[in-house]
Amino acid sequence: MARIAPLSGFPEWLPTQRVVEQYVLDTLREVFELHGFASIETRAVEPLDQLLRKGETDKEIYVLRRLQGEDGGPEAVTGSTLGLHFDLTVPLARYVLENAGHLEFPFRRYQIQKAWRGERPQEGRYREFTQADIDVIGRDTLSFHHEVEVAQVMAEVFARLPLPPVRLQVNSRKLIEGYYRGVGVDSGSIADVMRIVDKLDKVGADGVVTLLVAEAGLSEQQARSCVALTEVTADGDDLEGKVKALGVDHPMLDEGVGELSRVLRGSAALRSDKFSVVADLRIARGLDYYTGTVYETRMAGFEHLGSICSGGRYDALATDGRTTYPGVGISLGVTRAIGPLLSRGLLTASRSTPTCVLVALADEESRADVEGLASRLRSRGVATEVSPTAEKYGKQIRYAERRGIPFVWFPQDDGSHQVRDIRTGVQVDADAAAWVPPAEDLRPTVSGAAVT
Amino acid sequence: MARIAPLSGFPEWLPTQRVVEQYVLDTLREVFELHGFASIETRAVEPLDQLLRKGETDKEIYVLRRLQGEDGGPEAVTGSTLGLHFDLTVPLARYVLENAGHLEFPFRRYQIQKAWRGERPQEGRYREFTQADIDVIGRDTLSFHHEVEVAQVMAEVFARLPLPPVRLQVNSRKLIEGYYRGVGVDSGSIADVMRIVDKLDKVGADGVVTLLVAEAGLSEQQARSCVALTEVTADGDDLEGKVKALGVDHPMLDEGVGELSRVLRGSAALRSDKFSVVADLRIARGLDYYTGTVYETRMAGFEHLGSICSGGRYDALATDGRTTYPGVGISLGVTRAIGPLLSRGLLTASRSTPTCVLVALADEESRADVEGLASRLRSRGVATEVSPTAEKYGKQIRYAERRGIPFVWFPQDDGSHQVRDIRTGVQVDADAAAWVPPAEDLRPTVSGAAVT
Repeated sequence: MARIAPLSGFPEWLPTQRVVEQYVLDTLREVFELHGFASIETRAVEPLDQLLRKGETDKEIYVLRRLQGEDGGPEAVTGSTLGLHFDLTVPLARYVLENAGHLEFPFRRYQIQKAWRGERPQEGRYREFTQADIDVIGRDTLSFHHEVEVAQVMAEVFARLPLPPVRLQVNSRKLIEGYYRGVGVDSGSIADVMRIVDKLDKVGADGVVTLLVAEAGLSEQQARSCVALTEVTADGDDLEGKVKALGVDHPMLDEGVGELSRVLRGSAALRSDKFSVVADLRIARGLDYYTGTVYETRMAGFEHLGSICSGGRYDALATDGRTTYPGVGISLGVTRAIGPLLSRGLLTASRSTPTCVLVALADEESRADVEGLASRLRSRGVATEVSPTAEKYGKQIRYAERRGIPFVWFPQDDGSHQVRDIRTGVQVDADAAAWVPPAEDLRPTVSGAAVT
Repeated sequence: MARIAPLSGFPEWLPTQRVVEQYVLDTLREVFELHGFASIETRAVEPLDQLLRKGETDKEIYVLRRLQGEDGGPEAVTGSTLGLHFDLTVPLARYVLENAGHLEFPFRRYQIQKAWRGERPQEGRYREFTQADIDVIGRDTLSFHHEVEVAQVMAEVFARLPLPPVRLQVNSRKLIEGYYRGVGVDSGSIADVMRIVDKLDKVGADGVVTLLVAEAGLSEQQARSCVALTEVTADGDDLEGKVKALGVDHPMLDEGVGELSRVLRGSAALRSDKFSVVADLRIARGLDYYTGTVYETRMAGFEHLGSICSGGRYDALATDGRTTYPGVGISLGVTRAIGPLLSRGLLTASRSTPTCVLVALADEESRADVEGLASRLRSRGVATEVSPTAEKYGKQIRYAERRGIPFVWFPQDDGSHQVRDIRTGVQVDADAAAWVPPAEDLRPTVSGAAVT
């Protein structure tokens, strides 16, 4: 007998936890579809050379080989090794190029799938995890308003999910680059400055100033000015004033401020004690490859997870040499966000099974009749099981109790029926052709201890 | 630029095809949950030694390695290589053992996930494919009626899906073994006889008789009697008479005939011109490891795909030495069944997007107002997009047409609204706070040219 043990980094959920996960996935799908995003799925594998185009991630990739693979398979056909995808963006870019002739642009798609990274596991960082992405892909051009839109859609997701309070933090490559240009950084040094400012957490403000002077050739005043920008946060129309107060001027800066303000306004209506959206000009991750708005998201009490929902605007998500496909997208780390909540018992479901009604069985001989009754309940959408045994009713009720099934149905000798809410013990006459449970009992419900 | 080409055996669908797949998956989930099956998902990987317990499949397994894997990861922890699962039964057995203390038995679970096999691709045989499994797992014991139940549930699935006519074929290990015993085959030769009879398609009846005599030690009369049984098919209470007519008698045979008759009766109510269920005593695959009912399923016009939905009863799905977990399950090969239909265009959806309404945009300045209108429609469950551009209305209508979006909404200058069904051109006044589309237009619909 092989040893059975969990694999670190490959989370699996018990049925009750899975109910929570399904609820989250259903909510994502519902919101995405209400906004007109179409579902696609891509294969789990990509040629390794495609996966390695983002150079940094090479050590995290799982590479496949067939245990006895020698006959010419896809490996031979493509002349390349296959690896498991580590995100859903690389596959999307490839899918768009491969199917461009069959897609309508702007192409609005969502994709909810597993991805794999061979990272060292820790809380919120898994080797197998589910991502939920939305992207809008244009052909040649893509209007800015989609940068507002994808933030709105995710804001609506957060407004609906039973998570701890969530803060969407946005920044803008245009704003940052325009500011640096206004400070006098020359074009060739912009990327260096971004890379150095991104070290703020590690080396502190003075360290960043030193590096900007030594490595990017900035004056100390220019360097201090760049650091000053990282201290700006704003949640609405105060953004413009706060940036202006820094005394830097550039047309690209104005454009960036204007766009970021529109992103803030676009999600403002969804603000609550559970969801906030702020411009945080310290956000630097991804500024080197995004070209417009950049999104990150933090969950209160779970800041150590890092960003649970990130993305941004690319002017060239994909290109085949003739045509360029700009895109903007945002990706929720479903497992990253809910895995720690599930593991800590902070998100729970009301029962471990979809079953709403257990039909009690007086004796095995009546099973066929009772099945007919169960079918009638199911035909009205009520998830129904027939008791697996004809034991004493007390034992059948215990069967329901252990699973959290709220109702037990008792066919009576005279052909009438009664149904008992086993949580209250209240038992009433019921008509199998008409009875429906209270709406809140029809399906398992999900509750978040974390958000009371 | 890396070459972009499909990978043989890793099917991907265009958005319209994906709508069909989602419809099928939603139907499966709905039926499974109505019958009280709880969802679980297992990780994509299992230790290779677990996967190799079914010896025959070794050459089909994809083995993983980390591209730069040297730090102690799960590979080191388990002392074993990881491979992608090739079905959902091996993972289920492991999950049950690993979580037995947290599960309620009988444990009713469904699982809809991808699996991978490194097989040579052909129509209906893929390297990456989706399976949909239901199983009922007992602890120590599992009542026979669950063998009736899982067939019923899949029958209900088939009754709902837009597939070509489907035939569920059932057999019984008990019936076959009881018959062989009644013929006089000794216990030690039963498995050999099953293995040889399974070659019927390859070597023909006379070939099987020859092999049974030569390799299993049967007399020619015994051998002919075993072959005679393979010719029996029955769709109901005629089973008993047809088997009795062969003149073989054994208590286990009677038990098997009784059980198989119950399986037939259990699904009889769902018979239609689209779904039939028959006892087919020729079905031999799996008889060597199943211990009760065995299921296979064939789709009219697609017999070359083999069985699209198979399963059976195991007396020991899993065991930890102290406790044994019997199970019965049935697994629909979703990709195997619908992949060929999608590829041939025999299953299609009414549109490529969830969007039901496109709100037209008079000018960019009105985008924010129009977004508010779209939100009101979404709040009633109507998937709504705002036009990506404020081009001429004709172009905006074309945008909707190309995607199959049925309705375009026109805010009027006076604050009123009109909605046009662009399929008919009929445009009427509409109230944004109350309008709902006809139910059949709310979501994309799926139709099967194969089943008209």
